[in-house]
Amino acid sequence: MKLVKNAAGRMVPTQVNKLKLTPYKEIGKFRPKGNKAKPPIRTCADYPDDGNKVVKNLKEALKKAGLKDGMTISTHHHLRNGDVLTNQLFDTIKSMGIKNIRWYPSASFPCHEHLIKYLKDGTIHHIEGSMNGPLGRFTSHGKMKGVGILRSHGGRYQAVQDGEVHIDIAVIAAPTADPFGNATGDRGPAACGLLGFALADSEYADKVVVATDNLVPFPCVPWQIQGNNVDFVVEVDTLGDPSKIVSGTTQVTRSPDRLLIAEYVARFIEDAGILKDGFSMQAGAGGTNLAFALFLKERMKAQGVKARFIRGGSTQYLVQMLEEGLTDYILDGQTFDLEGVRSMRENANHVNTSPFTSYNFHGKGNFASIVDTAVLGATEVDINFNANVATHSDGYLLHGIGGWQNCLFSKCTILAIPSFRDRIPVIVDEVTTLCGPGELIDVIITERGIAINPKRKDLLKAVKNSDLPIKPIKQIYEEVNQLCGGAPAKPKINKNKVVAIIKWVDGTVIDSVFEVKQ
Amino acid sequence: MKLVKNAAGRMVPTQVNKLKLTPYKEIGKFRPKGNKAKPPIRTCADYPDDGNKVVKNLKEALKKAGLKDGMTISTHHHLRNGDVLTNQLFDTIKSMGIKNIRWYPSASFPCHEHLIKYLKDGTIHHIEGSMNGPLGRFTSHGKMKGVGILRSHGGRYQAVQDGEVHIDIAVIAAPTADPFGNATGDRGPAACGLLGFALADSEYADKVVVATDNLVPFPCVPWQIQGNNVDFVVEVDTLGDPSKIVSGTTQVTRSPDRLLIAEYVARFIEDAGILKDGFSMQAGAGGTNLAFALFLKERMKAQGVKARFIRGGSTQYLVQMLEEGLTDYILDGQTFDLEGVRSMRENANHVNTSPFTSYNFHGKGNFASIVDTAVLGATEVDINFNANVATHSDGYLLHGIGGWQNCLFSKCTILAIPSFRDRIPVIVDEVTTLCGPGELIDVIITERGIAINPKRKDLLKAVKNSDLPIKPIKQIYEEVNQLCGGAPAKPKINKNKVVAIIKWVDGTVIDSVFEVKQ
Repeated sequence: MKLVKNAAGRMVPTQVNKLKLTPYKEIGKFRPKGNKAKPPIRTCADYPDDGNKVVKNLKEALKKAGLKDGMTISTHHHLRNGDVLTNQLFDTIKSMGIKNIRWYPSASFPCHEHLIKYLKDGTIHHIEGSMNGPLGRFTSHGKMKGVGILRSHGGRYQAVQDGEVHIDIAVIAAPTADPFGNATGDRGPAACGLLGFALADSEYADKVVVATDNLVPFPCVPWQIQGNNVDFVVEVDTLGDPSKIVSGTTQVTRSPDRLLIAEYVARFIEDAGILKDGFSMQAGAGGTNLAFALFLKERMKAQGVKARFIRGGSTQYLVQMLEEGLTDYILDGQTFDLEGVRSMRENANHVNTSPFTSYNFHGKGNFASIVDTAVLGATEVDINFNANVATHSDGYLLHGIGGWQNCLFSKCTILAIPSFRDRIPVIVDEVTTLCGPGELIDVIITERGIAINPKRKDLLKAVKNSDLPIKPIKQIYEEVNQLCGGAPAKPKINKNKVVAIIKWVDGTVIDSVFEVKQ
Repeated sequence: MKLVKNAAGRMVPTQVNKLKLTPYKEIGKFRPKGNKAKPPIRTCADYPDDGNKVVKNLKEALKKAGLKDGMTISTHHHLRNGDVLTNQLFDTIKSMGIKNIRWYPSASFPCHEHLIKYLKDGTIHHIEGSMNGPLGRFTSHGKMKGVGILRSHGGRYQAVQDGEVHIDIAVIAAPTADPFGNATGDRGPAACGLLGFALADSEYADKVVVATDNLVPFPCVPWQIQGNNVDFVVEVDTLGDPSKIVSGTTQVTRSPDRLLIAEYVARFIEDAGILKDGFSMQAGAGGTNLAFALFLKERMKAQGVKARFIRGGSTQYLVQMLEEGLTDYILDGQTFDLEGVRSMRENANHVNTSPFTSYNFHGKGNFASIVDTAVLGATEVDINFNANVATHSDGYLLHGIGGWQNCLFSKCTILAIPSFRDRIPVIVDEVTTLCGPGELIDVIITERGIAINPKRKDLLKAVKNSDLPIKPIKQIYEEVNQLCGGAPAKPKINKNKVVAIIKWVDGTVIDSVFEVKQ
């Protein structure tokens, strides 16, 4: 495998899985050429007049869809760690004697450990999609036949839209659907909120199968997935375990360090002048972020400030803000708890978004760059503000990129991270894997202090009189190294074997993930 | 111009405006080949980070969009006869010295008589779109430079989707929009309800301009048109005259004959067994159809029957049915009065649809064929149940096709028509222009009796014991001829000059419209 140095100075392959690659060229420098993918023209003459597309079972649907060796099958991850359907799907594919599938999930979870046997026996050739946990570990050990390709949520949409990834058959888990294929995630026993991650699949795949455990008479409203893009509908006993699909409640951190970080973030946003009427923000659903949301809410109330919109991952805390009138809208990309699901169903101003609206870099703009501030996490960040979310300092690929890369385009991107985890520093001299270039990362907030990217002179000026512990990143780095007894040990990796690549939002390759030696 | 006889026995050209045409081949017999149109890939790098796409004025937007001679400009007709924007648009195009525009409206109205001067001076080469009134008359007189092409709402979507019509610049009148280009029709001073007719334009045009007289901060919710498809946003003083965009109230007919037709329709639907729990229907907004809706409502209440969905064109009467719980949903394609607009804004079960969901024949099915019964009009119907909606018996092209062709695919298509108008029989031996083939038209209901298509043995059997005046169509035809003193005079047309063609839902040519001799 030939590796070249890209514009970020990282060694990346020029080809994997017979797919030619473009090395990362700095932000906005890569110019896409050509036209979007063009699905075949269909005709109503080939579909049932009465709109009933229900077929007997998943196997029948896959047969009718023309499943063959080497095809690309896509799934979405809205069922998260409660997903039962995807495992059944590959059990079915295996039972049909099919081999060498390229699996294109929007993400995979620990529940998909079940699929390792299919990676071993050749049913699945390789995974293109975020890998959380066991499948990532398997890949890190160099055991996957092909090379993994990790994309952000926006990058996944972009790859399908641009024709880089042609999906032969999309299998869409739908918590509620009608026989025509209209589908929604906001109701039904396996309700997950929304289905935006399957949008590209429904629009561009050759064949689209909707599987549901809650078939309702036409029309299924809302139709988050449009039946006009669907070929077959399948009824299944269950899509998954509701308690693992969405949690009943999301938990605020109790760690004093994390609470301190959360408070710093809220105070920073206020001191930097971002917290003003009509502002907008995005925060994730981790314990620190939830605490931040609570701190921010108090500050908003104190100041009499109302947000124009908050981007979800929604949680009960964001829903409270919406229902208490502290924001006009939640623009939601996924719902993390039952309150999020309920609110999406009930509140017209809790709006369903998709990677197309929010994250696709090859569109006429997207929502991510309009957001005033995004509060994100990272596994590592280096002294040049470059950050990693996919691997740990030991080299293991254990997390997906999600919307993280896309959110970096906000007007003020804050990484809210502990300065060390398990006695390993999080601020390092060089990230193990580069997922986000430092020039897009504006502020690092740790329990030991806040570092502002020197490029953001405006922010430095804005907080000049703040009593927050603002320090150069080098200073925090050194403090933490001292505390932890030095920088993390270098990972034991095989620099000759790329097991996965990290795509940038424009489809170029920003870094490689290497085999971890056991 | 070479004419050939198509499968319906009508003479149609094989080429107009340098575009090759396929003659009509019977329903479902034409097999589309190839792939959908593929718009160019864009990049966020070329669009403002803050999402603000507002430019100074329409001229600036057209300049930036690269307006040139011979381009195709599209508009939508949701502003109906209150549309001021389209006239301003062509005033602007004229002022820029641009020539030979192909205008691709979803329909034109009497207010667009203003544009006749641009058809005369070569600013506009020809119109592809429904022509209501003056522009149709102008075309009938053979004065348009090119040949008009009339398509149904579904056919218009299909033509764009299939790449038959490439739109260079779409100009979308948006009653409310944000600077990113998200737009909605359900609010604002020029509120028109929805914007579905502009969907294809927004998805496939090279450049998309949103013009609004009600700019709101991002996000404009709902986003019926997605800003991610929009290049430029323009603020204008006014989009049009609200009173002509939607009427305050829609008027039920007072004509005893029309009331009788309406009552027959309601009774027929009951006697034929269509009126049962969970049924669905579509009816237009003409005076007869409104009366029918009222009759039907009484029957539904009497029988304790609830519809699953009613397709709009919504009116106050459909909204009443929704709000009184007589239907689960209104699936709306356009709103005809202020109550329709209000309901769309307020009721989550008053759902925004589009030609893509409802009518596109080159999709994986559409809604139209799922509907139990559609009640439509016609200018003429012949003794073989073939019907005309575009021309009058004198040959003049005065109406668009709208969704009429698409609705013919319902499970029971009823034409509710007076047997004569202005002493001219409506039931004829042969329609002047064939817009819908008789095999899709199931029932003709006039004040003089009801004719059922002999092919529908099931319907004939179902109403065997009904006391409705069911007669062979020939009998009604003869009665009316006698009453009116004979069949209508043959139109004075020039069979050597085709002034417009009528497309079928699959893009084939079903008939020609000929020059009317003055």
